[in-house]
Amino acid sequence: MATRMTIPPRALCGCITDAPPGKLSAILENAAVDLLEWRLDAAIHFHSLEAALQGIPLLSRSNRLPVVATHRPVSQGGHFSGPEKERMDLLQKAADAGAEWVDLEEGTPEAMVRTFQRKGTQVLLSSHDFSGTPPGPSLRDLAKKMARKNPDAVKIVTLAGNSEDCLRVLELIPFGQRELGLDVIAFAMGASGRWSRPASLLLGSPWAYVQLPGQPAAAPGQLEADEMRRLLAMLVGEAPS
Amino acid sequence: MATRMTIPPRALCGCITDAPPGKLSAILENAAVDLLEWRLDAAIHFHSLEAALQGIPLLSRSNRLPVVATHRPVSQGGHFSGPEKERMDLLQKAADAGAEWVDLEEGTPEAMVRTFQRKGTQVLLSSHDFSGTPPGPSLRDLAKKMARKNPDAVKIVTLAGNSEDCLRVLELIPFGQRELGLDVIAFAMGASGRWSRPASLLLGSPWAYVQLPGQPAAAPGQLEADEMRRLLAMLVGEAPS
Repeated sequence: MATRMTIPPRALCGCITDAPPGKLSAILENAAVDLLEWRLDAAIHFHSLEAALQGIPLLSRSNRLPVVATHRPVSQGGHFSGPEKERMDLLQKAADAGAEWVDLEEGTPEAMVRTFQRKGTQVLLSSHDFSGTPPGPSLRDLAKKMARKNPDAVKIVTLAGNSEDCLRVLELIPFGQRELGLDVIAFAMGASGRWSRPASLLLGSPWAYVQLPGQPAAAPGQLEADEMRRLLAMLVGEAPS
Repeated sequence: MATRMTIPPRALCGCITDAPPGKLSAILENAAVDLLEWRLDAAIHFHSLEAALQGIPLLSRSNRLPVVATHRPVSQGGHFSGPEKERMDLLQKAADAGAEWVDLEEGTPEAMVRTFQRKGTQVLLSSHDFSGTPPGPSLRDLAKKMARKNPDAVKIVTLAGNSEDCLRVLELIPFGQRELGLDVIAFAMGASGRWSRPASLLLGSPWAYVQLPGQPAAAPGQLEADEMRRLLAMLVGEAPS
């Protein structure tokens, strides 16, 4: 049973993309963010499956930040190209050890979503489009389709070719809250999408992904945690903390 | 005939709201922005009609920044409550002296728009809603109605009650470019609207209004010029200049 740690509004989620087993513990306990995404596919890719398996028991500790366990396949921009069963097995180990959230790709069967939820793990159903930003109606249809699997939150990310693309993606956040009764994480990747990341938090996305010191960016356009915090403070007109 | 000074993309327009005649000349020549909005209604309100009239000849000088002359009536959030003819006369004096742009309120007859354009002065047709942010279709209808008067650019500003309001207003910028072939300045006032000001520039608004050092903010949520510059640099991922 996963512990249910509280995640504050406008949370920053630091991405663990390249942590050797020896460093993982310190990041889980001390990173200056509100929660962490642990990219299991990156752990395997940059280190080994054994390294990822060594890290799993750390999720049982109580003195750590909340964790989203992600095991992204190559088809969705991740590093994992092995069998689907192996991928799900590792995610289940992370959930069993105590990860508060798992990130499951949009095509995941609803039964699998339910399997994780029955363990007490919250499911973030995610979609990544690295080719561009579809028209508004397609994006809303995608959000509706994903909502039908009853996840705990939805993540829709596209690649921005221009600033207008950001507007279309950001609209999914109020659309999800109003039409689907669902928290939506929605922003656009790439240089033109950069501003959509802080904007997504202002529009009500539960968290935004940021780069941790010493970690490579998990996606193009990602900001560092400190930078995001300064930006948010300036955008809402508060002195940065 | 107005000189046609070049205004760079993503320009910052500093608002002159309270400049005694002795200070106006220095601001027109040296302000660290790309263009200036001279609020004639504020000049009269904080000083006198004579003070405004004394400033007009400064617009004939060539060593100054481009100027938008604005004479906002009380009904649109300005300070001027005198007869309409007096208001237009002062704007015409500013245009005759060389102001590159005049800001005319949405209800201005098309013939008056034409009168200024025939002098070589560009017309920014503007609408301000201090009560809230209308639904998307109403906003687009307003933009279409304003476009029919053939202004050189359109400005639509609303009061934001939340971040979603910003999205609706910002959409007018790509809508204007694509559907009306028109530059649109669109953002939302108030604390919740603050982030829409830098976002409007990223979406293609020709300029954004900023507070000049030593000048009061011309509208709620307005940022200082330096702050806006830092924000923009952070939002696009460039080192601030």
